[in-house]
Amino acid sequence: MAYRLAKKLPEGQRNIILEVVAKSMKKPGCISFAMGSPAVDSIPVELLQQCTEEVFRENPLAVLQYGPMAGDAKLAEWIKNRVCSAKGASSENNMVVLLTGSGKALGLVPRTLCDEGDEVYVDALTFPNSYNSALNVGAKPIGILMDEDGMLPEALEKAAMSGKGKYIYVIPNFQNPTGRTMSLERRKAIYAIAQKYQLLIYEDDPYGDIRFTGEEVPSFKSIDVDNIVLYVGSFSKTLSAGLRVGYIYGPTPVMQKLMAVKTGDGQDPLFNQLIIRKCLEKMDFEEHLAKIREIYGRKARLMAETLASSCAKSCRVEMPEGGMFAWVNIPEQVDIDAVAEAALEKGVAVVKSEAFAVDAKQAGHAFRLNFSAPTDEAIVKGCRLFGEVTQEFCDK
Amino acid sequence: MAYRLAKKLPEGQRNIILEVVAKSMKKPGCISFAMGSPAVDSIPVELLQQCTEEVFRENPLAVLQYGPMAGDAKLAEWIKNRVCSAKGASSENNMVVLLTGSGKALGLVPRTLCDEGDEVYVDALTFPNSYNSALNVGAKPIGILMDEDGMLPEALEKAAMSGKGKYIYVIPNFQNPTGRTMSLERRKAIYAIAQKYQLLIYEDDPYGDIRFTGEEVPSFKSIDVDNIVLYVGSFSKTLSAGLRVGYIYGPTPVMQKLMAVKTGDGQDPLFNQLIIRKCLEKMDFEEHLAKIREIYGRKARLMAETLASSCAKSCRVEMPEGGMFAWVNIPEQVDIDAVAEAALEKGVAVVKSEAFAVDAKQAGHAFRLNFSAPTDEAIVKGCRLFGEVTQEFCDK
Repeated sequence: MAYRLAKKLPEGQRNIILEVVAKSMKKPGCISFAMGSPAVDSIPVELLQQCTEEVFRENPLAVLQYGPMAGDAKLAEWIKNRVCSAKGASSENNMVVLLTGSGKALGLVPRTLCDEGDEVYVDALTFPNSYNSALNVGAKPIGILMDEDGMLPEALEKAAMSGKGKYIYVIPNFQNPTGRTMSLERRKAIYAIAQKYQLLIYEDDPYGDIRFTGEEVPSFKSIDVDNIVLYVGSFSKTLSAGLRVGYIYGPTPVMQKLMAVKTGDGQDPLFNQLIIRKCLEKMDFEEHLAKIREIYGRKARLMAETLASSCAKSCRVEMPEGGMFAWVNIPEQVDIDAVAEAALEKGVAVVKSEAFAVDAKQAGHAFRLNFSAPTDEAIVKGCRLFGEVTQEFCDK
Repeated sequence: MAYRLAKKLPEGQRNIILEVVAKSMKKPGCISFAMGSPAVDSIPVELLQQCTEEVFRENPLAVLQYGPMAGDAKLAEWIKNRVCSAKGASSENNMVVLLTGSGKALGLVPRTLCDEGDEVYVDALTFPNSYNSALNVGAKPIGILMDEDGMLPEALEKAAMSGKGKYIYVIPNFQNPTGRTMSLERRKAIYAIAQKYQLLIYEDDPYGDIRFTGEEVPSFKSIDVDNIVLYVGSFSKTLSAGLRVGYIYGPTPVMQKLMAVKTGDGQDPLFNQLIIRKCLEKMDFEEHLAKIREIYGRKARLMAETLASSCAKSCRVEMPEGGMFAWVNIPEQVDIDAVAEAALEKGVAVVKSEAFAVDAKQAGHAFRLNFSAPTDEAIVKGCRLFGEVTQEFCDK
């Protein structure tokens, strides 16, 4: 039977990351740099356990009965205060909407902003859900070329001239997959284009708190004189990914509409929000972040050193100032699929840049390597193996 | 600043239920029949607390790290088995998608099935999120008149002849707000129209397990020879509303597309699913349902008796065979807003039928009264007060 589904939905798409993960799981002992899971030792397991039990015991019915549609007001207030103090956001004419992870905003924002045929501007290589969710509402995501400073303003403006754009999606800090951070100058240039073409800016910042070296760059939200930035954050990389608590902070009229759309999905579990809130009340969050940065910084340096001493000379390794991912560029003439296959064969899983390309014609020629999830030992061993493969293929 | 949002989104809509709730909260001592919360004494609080602590202790990282995108496979299997055994569904060519509450399906189904301008057929009076979510994707929900057996097949067919329809949304058991149950004959007639016009059927069954009197009517899914029924269920009314665990069970190709759309929202919290699964493993679920049915049956009878002895003779009280809601029809010539106001003034909150009308021209002339949330004492007192108001307005 042929079912009559929405015509606007895209055909089934490849998920190259999951393909790599599936292959690596079939290979005993395979070291995986493929996923983006937080470092286990950065999760405050015992404290979260204590908070979970306390939240339940203190008020079981708050956990088990329906709660307020907007979620926990005190957590929303905590978030607003922190976004204003730590990210330089204005407290005026903006509001928080709590989400089941920041990923929920990837679906909600195009649902709120886009009609069929509207355009969405994303980095040529970026987190796949950002453009897949735009496709799901019949919008047209357009990949904008980037350099080491991030999205290219000239390329963005050329696209925006169509007049069909609704928003620009960026991960300005330690971008996924490249690990690159957008300079302040670049942010200002992108912001000016948004102003000129009446575009909103979706500033996705899941990694922003995990800077382990270099100077913090002011957020888009901090330079947002026209109040056109939707700042999206998460506790997934800092407290717990599994509890699914994230948020979006943006202009009140946009957030009200987004909340109306979200209400159609029913409410989120209050329990998870209460656990996060209690954890924040009990801990010194900034001190906790300092600890996470130390862990991530150590792992990143270990990966950088091992890749530097192992990889082919023709490879260009980019190490980020924060976040979770290293980026290894290989020469254009090398068969990237052959390198990926050979790496898997040797027992190390990496993800090729095409996995993040909104347009296969802009597939890039690089690999993303995650350093947060693997142990130190696995980082050293895996990078050496990967280095051997690059030597075999790239310096011929 | 005027923000450029999606043009297809509806203007801000009134939420009459929340308006009533807000007013009732301002009145000290006001008895509320306005919400649809489960009975507190039907929630297995201690068992859920024990399950919560065990799930966390047994495998904290399963709770705190990213989990599988599809959620807990064992819970999905439990659900499939029960939908097949208790609801007569076929196990072939169908699959379960786990959701954050069954309400999540109200958003996902139109996102998966509808392009702008497509039609969705719903009862003239029904759960508002069912039609608001259709509006949110630019689809057109059409209210189909109903009688005491449910949606009228003639009216449905007349609408379906447009050829623009995608699915029929029904709550066949103890419908919200009317409490009515669709007869088997009526279900077959509706199903035949779905077959004829290539419509899917969204069978929303949150209350189906809470039948306290009468004979169970076979589900749409049990007569689904063409595999066109999406059966949606929930643990919100039977275990816990706050944990937000529900599901949809339907034709595999439709579920695969729905899952692709859902993936764009990020993953759901596995923790909540693991708590529900452990609770199901530890308890005799059917025995638990028997206990819930006893509680709900007692409350329903109490409300029925008190309304029968208190309400004006010209009112027609409909008591359901299950679920959570009584339905009180008042004479057409009576000013329904005046009755609602006077009831609030006396200290009892009820929701008028207009709150559930997709089309204000089909606003009905009745009140929904919830009997699951209030205590027995509140049911008696509140129904007497409401009865006095109806006497004042209706038997003049």
